[in-house]
Amino acid sequence: MSSFDPDTRTSWLAPEDLDLVRDRVPMVYVQAVPVRLDDAGIVTHVGLLLRLLPDGSISRAVVSGRILYGETVRHALLRHLAKDVGPVARPRLPPQPAPFTVVEYFPHPEVTGFHDPRQHAVSLVFVVPVDGDCMPADDALEFSWITPEEVVSPTGQQELSGDQGRLVRMALAHVGRLT
Amino acid sequence: MSSFDPDTRTSWLAPEDLDLVRDRVPMVYVQAVPVRLDDAGIVTHVGLLLRLLPDGSISRAVVSGRILYGETVRHALLRHLAKDVGPVARPRLPPQPAPFTVVEYFPHPEVTGFHDPRQHAVSLVFVVPVDGDCMPADDALEFSWITPEEVVSPTGQQELSGDQGRLVRMALAHVGRLT
Amino acid sequence: MSSFDPDTRTSWLAPEDLDLVRDRVPMVYVQAVPVRLDDAGIVTHVGLLLRLLPDGSISRAVVSGRILYGETVRHALLRHLAKDVGPVARPRLPPQPAPFTVVEYFPHPEVTGFHDPRQHAVSLVFVVPVDGDCMPADDALEFSWITPEEVVSPTGQQELSGDQGRLVRMALAHVGRLT
Amino acid sequence: MSSFDPDTRTSWLAPEDLDLVRDRVPMVYVQAVPVRLDDAGIVTHVGLLLRLLPDGSISRAVVSGRILYGETVRHALLRHLAKDVGPVARPRLPPQPAPFTVVEYFPHPEVTGFHDPRQHAVSLVFVVPVDGDCMPADDALEFSWITPEEVVSPTGQQELSGDQGRLVRMALAHVGRLT
Repeated sequence: MSSFDPDTRTSWLAPEDLDLVRDRVPMVYVQAVPVRLDDAGIVTHVGLLLRLLPDGSISRAVVSGRILYGETVRHALLRHLAKDVGPVARPRLPPQPAPFTVVEYFPHPEVTGFHDPRQHAVSLVFVVPVDGDCMPADDALEFSWITPEEVVSPTGQQELSGDQGRLVRMALAHVGRLT
Repeated sequence: MSSFDPDTRTSWLAPEDLDLVRDRVPMVYVQAVPVRLDDAGIVTHVGLLLRLLPDGSISRAVVSGRILYGETVRHALLRHLAKDVGPVARPRLPPQPAPFTVVEYFPHPEVTGFHDPRQHAVSLVFVVPVDGDCMPADDALEFSWITPEEVVSPTGQQELSGDQGRLVRMALAHVGRLT
Repeated sequence: MSSFDPDTRTSWLAPEDLDLVRDRVPMVYVQAVPVRLDDAGIVTHVGLLLRLLPDGSISRAVVSGRILYGETVRHALLRHLAKDVGPVARPRLPPQPAPFTVVEYFPHPEVTGFHDPRQHAVSLVFVVPVDGDCMPADDALEFSWITPEEVVSPTGQQELSGDQGRLVRMALAHVGRLT
Repeated sequence: MSSFDPDTRTSWLAPEDLDLVRDRVPMVYVQAVPVRLDDAGIVTHVGLLLRLLPDGSISRAVVSGRILYGETVRHALLRHLAKDVGPVARPRLPPQPAPFTVVEYFPHPEVTGFHDPRQHAVSLVFVVPVDGDCMPADDALEFSWITPEEVVSPTGQQELSGDQGRLVRMALAHVGRLT
């Protein structure tokens, strides 16, 4: 696999082909909730991007992206993390392949409450400790570290769209930091 | 979603379309390891099908199948369980959406060791307690309940292809029954 | 072990001995969040007791109790479930031995936010689907099935003490039902 | 808690008191399987000590020890890791509080197959990535990094007692590296 470059392959997948495929099978996504840990491994901050979501709203959001044909889950995570939080963030992927949760996005908003008007996507969600400096890249407007307490505060919830707020609270519960 | 019948939609996805899609994006699969539990929830038996695998070999195997466009992970699991172990098996899907592991199948056998010559597939794997009678359906030749000790015996391992043996041992380790 | 009756052993552990032990080592506890599932395994209700907590308050609470010397985690769960929700509840313990979370109770309320003035306790917490009829037993005043939406409503949160509300929200997040 | 020194407290727990307590309640243990990860988070090596086990045999073994009164699970893990693999190992505790499995040791070897003649112990087991140099400390005779393939080889299994071999295979299955 080392000589395989999924990004080349992707650019070869013309937009009209992607549309065709999206209308026929579920897409596989990865999502990463970047976190800062203290020396004992306790989550002190959650890293959130400010970005334009598929449904058109602006919201804080976690790292997110499609797994390409021929790409492993881990390489998809690393690629999207590099794209969204920059090349020196030094993410530490967990050793286990199981995501802490699976979120299903549907074009119809009421199937699961997770909504993506473009497609049906099955997303594997991971909490990813990040040691290095993070800087917003690509289409993200901003990147901020927020405490677990701020996430669930009224202001924090206001800055997170329904989907993303729910996802971040699930991640906080998983790491024992949902207050 | 209740009025949506994914099987109709699938039949509408012509074989040549499926081939086209398979060559462009990873497919999302679910796999279920059926188990019998005693009253304290300890796994006493693993349920295995005898079937023709994608790579042409005959092997014992777990329940396996594609998630269709518009179908939830849970409905895909129930549909494939009904197809493979029959309509009265009474599977009990776990309450949590996270699979106990994720297995990645690639057309090239050496990427992960899990091999599917037809496609790149990302598979969410669940242990599913089953209470009712099981009968092999569709393309399966046989269905058997096997003890954890038999699975890891030389005979048991011989009846399981490399992939499937590894998957079943991972499931046994997860439930604390790998000896 | 089958001839071993932990309850006899416990009655043999005189109250003053238990006090002595509690002051020297952490106690091991199990906690179970009883849930009702629909046919697809989705949590529709959470079962909560109304009871007197260790800190003196009255609150809705999950099933909870000590693991005795010589008793397995599973038998402790079954014993406390039988005691708290009655003998015909038919709990279905999950096949995996790992709890979905571990909660640490300390005599000092600020170590983890989980408080037990009597002792330092390490609690293994499980979500346990329950099929049969539940009736409050022993020291519980009432048993009720509550929807995930009601749990997080202002009224629901008011009826749950800080600890127990946090624990139930963690369980809901784990099963994908935290709204 | 920061001013509390559990080791002082422990030295205060006289050996005869520990014996008394061990005969009355289960002890809470933590166990850590040290691992080396590659840049994508895949386990390349497992770290094993050579040591005298409670049952008198010499075997390769994982990091293991008791949680003290007043000590958190995380601090117990860090303390035993420092003791067993040295002060510059830089272990990275996972952010989630849930262990990947729970192992129950009983004085009677046949209850669970995990045997500790001294006591009934409930052990929370974690996979812990370690970045720094490891050196055997205290009662360990040696520390070695071993590949997943070597662990399951006949030589590898011979160097691991029954209990410890089973535990390491469970850890390898959890991280997708059981071959």
